[in-house]
Amino acid sequence: MTQPPKSHGRLSISASLTPRDLMAERPALKGAWRAKIVTLFPQAFPGVLGQSLTGKALDQGLWALETIDLRPYGEGKHRNVDDTPAGGGAGMVLRADVVHRALSDAQEGTVPDRGDWPVVYLSPRGAPFTQATAKRWAGAQGITMLCGRFEGVDQRVLDHHQVEEVSLGDFVLTGGEIAAQAMIDATVRLIPGVLGNEASTEEESHSNGLLEHPQYTRPASWMGRAIPDVLMSGHHGEIAKWRHEMSQALTRARRPDLWAAFKSRQND
Amino acid sequence: MTQPPKSHGRLSISASLTPRDLMAERPALKGAWRAKIVTLFPQAFPGVLGQSLTGKALDQGLWALETIDLRPYGEGKHRNVDDTPAGGGAGMVLRADVVHRALSDAQEGTVPDRGDWPVVYLSPRGAPFTQATAKRWAGAQGITMLCGRFEGVDQRVLDHHQVEEVSLGDFVLTGGEIAAQAMIDATVRLIPGVLGNEASTEEESHSNGLLEHPQYTRPASWMGRAIPDVLMSGHHGEIAKWRHEMSQALTRARRPDLWAAFKSRQND
Repeated sequence: MTQPPKSHGRLSISASLTPRDLMAERPALKGAWRAKIVTLFPQAFPGVLGQSLTGKALDQGLWALETIDLRPYGEGKHRNVDDTPAGGGAGMVLRADVVHRALSDAQEGTVPDRGDWPVVYLSPRGAPFTQATAKRWAGAQGITMLCGRFEGVDQRVLDHHQVEEVSLGDFVLTGGEIAAQAMIDATVRLIPGVLGNEASTEEESHSNGLLEHPQYTRPASWMGRAIPDVLMSGHHGEIAKWRHEMSQALTRARRPDLWAAFKSRQND
Repeated sequence: MTQPPKSHGRLSISASLTPRDLMAERPALKGAWRAKIVTLFPQAFPGVLGQSLTGKALDQGLWALETIDLRPYGEGKHRNVDDTPAGGGAGMVLRADVVHRALSDAQEGTVPDRGDWPVVYLSPRGAPFTQATAKRWAGAQGITMLCGRFEGVDQRVLDHHQVEEVSLGDFVLTGGEIAAQAMIDATVRLIPGVLGNEASTEEESHSNGLLEHPQYTRPASWMGRAIPDVLMSGHHGEIAKWRHEMSQALTRARRPDLWAAFKSRQND
């Protein structure tokens, strides 16, 4: 691979108005984990998921991604998918009948047990997405995700389809598409074969409930800053002790919530 | 716009190996908010950010996006950007000197005050990203983000550049690119002119610290499920009361943390 000169390292980027090439159909391996995304912006996928390890795994058929465009399921000539909220208020609400038709089509070829195939709505009202959610989903056969826009979704279709509401965090996104990509990334990397040995390692660094200690690498001295002596000492016991102390100090300073949970586990 | 038949609503997607068209340079409006992303995967941008409201605002020059490819700043013939951790352990650590060169180039044309131009590293070790973070960043002139991969970044370059570490949530992502897109989306939509009146509305629904009440829209009856009577009553006071009660019940059930904070504010 040739290396571009440094001046080519930067690119000013604007939104492209030309549609992306339709990506070729690609058979997934038998029994591969599948993600089905109901969205008004199917062209936003695979997005980041097409890059790097998740993209390579997608090409290898280790998982499969399918988008279901919500628009054609809309009502009338303009294929309206939303309407004003009952009882008044600002914003628009996705219609139960429209979402139901899309979800019903999406469920073709899946299993009805929500444990084996969660149906998820990405919403700030949902339960917080965590590593435990990713592990649970990675153990299912696949997932169906509904990406919201507007003010929300008619509650009746969420009830009817036993939809699990999940939130990426306490912030407001333009739509559910980015949240879907983040959650799928976190889930897919837990599927066997997607990552190498690195996976288990990264898991370990979170499994004790503390933030990770600072890292250093060559050069030993940089801009007058040296790597801490202990890391260069070769004393494995001292290194492990130093790292654990740094992890504790960082967690105490940055994440009082995790620190309190850690202390309470220690006292059990 | 012609409507595709329903069978065209779904697309099987695989990762494309062909490079995307280089997107044309586009001048941003004078003083527009700017995001600079240092990444090994510049082709992952704009991704979802090129769609919908954020994409339209990008085309209108209301904000600007620039990627800085980290690879050309690497060492030696193979442009290595990482090395093994000092003190041992699994994974690879991004080198201080390599990251420094990229960040220094990225800082051209920015202001040194970190309040006016935050420099952010996307890391599970960081402070949790919230709506307050998005508001603070939207008030700056722009932002520089470093997307991590591997085990981490040499701590010295984070110290030297006064880098703010921020985490999208308590889960492990393949890399920082998705986290960057989520945080930029949440920030850009707060920039004046990007959203219409809807912005203020959505903010309000979060400002009381409770989850939003359920929403309903036409049809009034669907699959034997009716919209709750109170919402059809026209009694604005009753509707507001019902919605507030539903918000409280949902928050209590799904988010004990938010509920505790809400109760403690009430008792002040």
